Amino acid sequence: MNAVGEDVLIARAYLSRVAEPPAPALARLVAEVGPLEAAERVHSGHVDEQVAGETRARRTVHHEVADLAAAAAAGARLLTPEHAEWPEWPLVACAMSGRHELAAPVALWVRGAGRLGELCEQAVAVVGARAATGYGVHVAGELGAGLADRGYTVVSGAAIGIDGAAHRGALAVHGPTVAVLACGVERAYPVAHQALLERIAAGGLVVSEYPPGSVPGRHRFLVRNRLIAALSAGTVVVEAGLRSGAQRTASDATGLGRLVMAVPGPVTSGLSAGSHQLVRDGALLVTRTEEVLEAVGRIGVDLADRHPSGPRRPTDDLDPVSVLVHDALPARAAREARWLAMEAGVPIGAVRAALVTLERRALVEHRDGRWRRRAAAGADTPGET
Amino acid sequence: MNAVGEDVLIARAYLSRVAEPPAPALARLVAEVGPLEAAERVHSGHVDEQVAGETRARRTVHHEVADLAAAAAAGARLLTPEHAEWPEWPLVACAMSGRHELAAPVALWVRGAGRLGELCEQAVAVVGARAATGYGVHVAGELGAGLADRGYTVVSGAAIGIDGAAHRGALAVHGPTVAVLACGVERAYPVAHQALLERIAAGGLVVSEYPPGSVPGRHRFLVRNRLIAALSAGTVVVEAGLRSGAQRTASDATGLGRLVMAVPGPVTSGLSAGSHQLVRDGALLVTRTEEVLEAVGRIGVDLADRHPSGPRRPTDDLDPVSVLVHDALPARAAREARWLAMEAGVPIGAVRAALVTLERRALVEHRDGRWRRRAAAGADTPGET
Repeated sequence: MNAVGEDVLIARAYLSRVAEPPAPALARLVAEVGPLEAAERVHSGHVDEQVAGETRARRTVHHEVADLAAAAAAGARLLTPEHAEWPEWPLVACAMSGRHELAAPVALWVRGAGRLGELCEQAVAVVGARAATGYGVHVAGELGAGLADRGYTVVSGAAIGIDGAAHRGALAVHGPTVAVLACGVERAYPVAHQALLERIAAGGLVVSEYPPGSVPGRHRFLVRNRLIAALSAGTVVVEAGLRSGAQRTASDATGLGRLVMAVPGPVTSGLSAGSHQLVRDGALLVTRTEEVLEAVGRIGVDLADRHPSGPRRPTDDLDPVSVLVHDALPARAAREARWLAMEAGVPIGAVRAALVTLERRALVEHRDGRWRRRAAAGADTPGET
Repeated sequence: MNAVGEDVLIARAYLSRVAEPPAPALARLVAEVGPLEAAERVHSGHVDEQVAGETRARRTVHHEVADLAAAAAAGARLLTPEHAEWPEWPLVACAMSGRHELAAPVALWVRGAGRLGELCEQAVAVVGARAATGYGVHVAGELGAGLADRGYTVVSGAAIGIDGAAHRGALAVHGPTVAVLACGVERAYPVAHQALLERIAAGGLVVSEYPPGSVPGRHRFLVRNRLIAALSAGTVVVEAGLRSGAQRTASDATGLGRLVMAVPGPVTSGLSAGSHQLVRDGALLVTRTEEVLEAVGRIGVDLADRHPSGPRRPTDDLDPVSVLVHDALPARAAREARWLAMEAGVPIGAVRAALVTLERRALVEHRDGRWRRRAAAGADTPGET
């Protein structure tokens, strides 16, 4: 793990508690000025109306050192965009969605042996009803095992029912799995899943944007669902009633540009009604692991073939974030990474990763902390005033 | 019932036996020259290579009078395009599909109290596996009852399993239902459905393109399926294995421009695999009668709104066949109905019906058996050389 300064950790820990997620204005501020400056401004109240609205209630609460200590005591740690392990690309979709309710987290509390960035490189969410039927539990377990067996991380919410079955399926084949909670990662919630959460942490990760001690609540379960969707290439809904949490996760996945899949069931079961409605609304019907993998795999192919018929350009085959960053660079002027973050609307950490990619491909160069386009890429510049 | 000449009935009865359906070349010949001339030519062998290929084996077999007598003895009759009761519009799709395997029948043998044309005005097919599960039988019965209760005719194939359940559902609410057989209509096939077939005939119809005495066979079941699809606005597949007869019906329905719907089931059931594959291939997932009706009803709306944004034309709101016939009429020259049938590629009976519609709307006029456009409609003519 790369070293992240104590000051940054403390600032991010403060920011993680100062606003109730989702906090889109705070996320934007942190992306623009960095965590140290953002924490200072929020604490002192020198922020715009939107950030003030999100942080007013808790801005004088300084629990960050205690939170970090509590996390350490529970075997957990604070993961920030400054860590190499941060899942850059999965969470960029939150910022890029433009939807307030899908705002990116300012940090994530994690507990377990896994590294989140790696776990999310190939991940599929499997979610569904708490009051699942034996049929749903069976199918979720099969999918969890099938996906994990093929190297995919199974992401879910650790709830009773479908979520638990999906996690257990992955664990049964010693595969990776990630549980995203709506409370502190040190909590055993639900209590009945205490042992399951320990097993998840042993090889994977228990994740939450809520600091240690946070209690779950109805609102937080819904807000948490966007992270399950964001950390996965696609979301499979196994059993869900109409207007259920799983449907919310599916809706978030759509908003984040993620694939939504649903497993059908008997039409006589109210617990399959949500899945069927999703298919009627455009979700892909899937019946087994192979169909999920075929669909999730297709995403990469589709992205690679975005411009199949146009002439080849130096920026072809770049990941979407690198394209955004490259497009943000003026034709001749040099810019700092932070300026690019604002211009491209991408978190600073993602900008830095993209700049490394672009530099390797000789598309950009840097001097004195400022970046500019390489001449060879000049033919591909958008106009600048 | 309008009177149809004995000579026409005998000719159609002959044509109904002389070729094994589907017989696209024979159907075209009959549409072009009428049944009397077609029967004469086929009998004498003065036909083109394609018609000869379809009729060579049986052209000297003259069973038509015996067939008509056998039908009458069984309480059945021969229905032809010359009857007002003939389902013109549903079967036009067969000729218009351009696919050989979907060719229109030259006549239909029917047994029962219903009138086929009326029964098909609002009809939905419900088909599925013979080896259905209790779940599938339940759902098919509910759909059959639900559709019949709302005035829709339930069309199916009278087979054991899903088909039988759909018919029974309709009968349970004293609703109309039509069974299309792959053998003579006087036969009780399957034997276990003898009583069911009697009940279907009592208020609806048992239909077949095969003359009395014909035995069912694997090929005929598949060929028969196109008629189930054609006589319905949409086909609902309840339970079907992969590569099943129900999937063939769905494929035929697509080829005929009909809506294909599928009822999902447990992914653990091989009998729902065909339904799920259909949805993955684009069929509409339906879970209850209301969703079927919404989809089938939408077809009419879509047809009515085909040109929502263009300027109003005299031919707007016409049914598709009348539009075809109107388009086929030259700008100034007069033509016989038979010429129009060839030009528009529409059966002569459908042309006559369309001409009546067009005359009522003052779009055409006739003199000495020839039809021409009315001057008022002149602005809407396609170019003619």
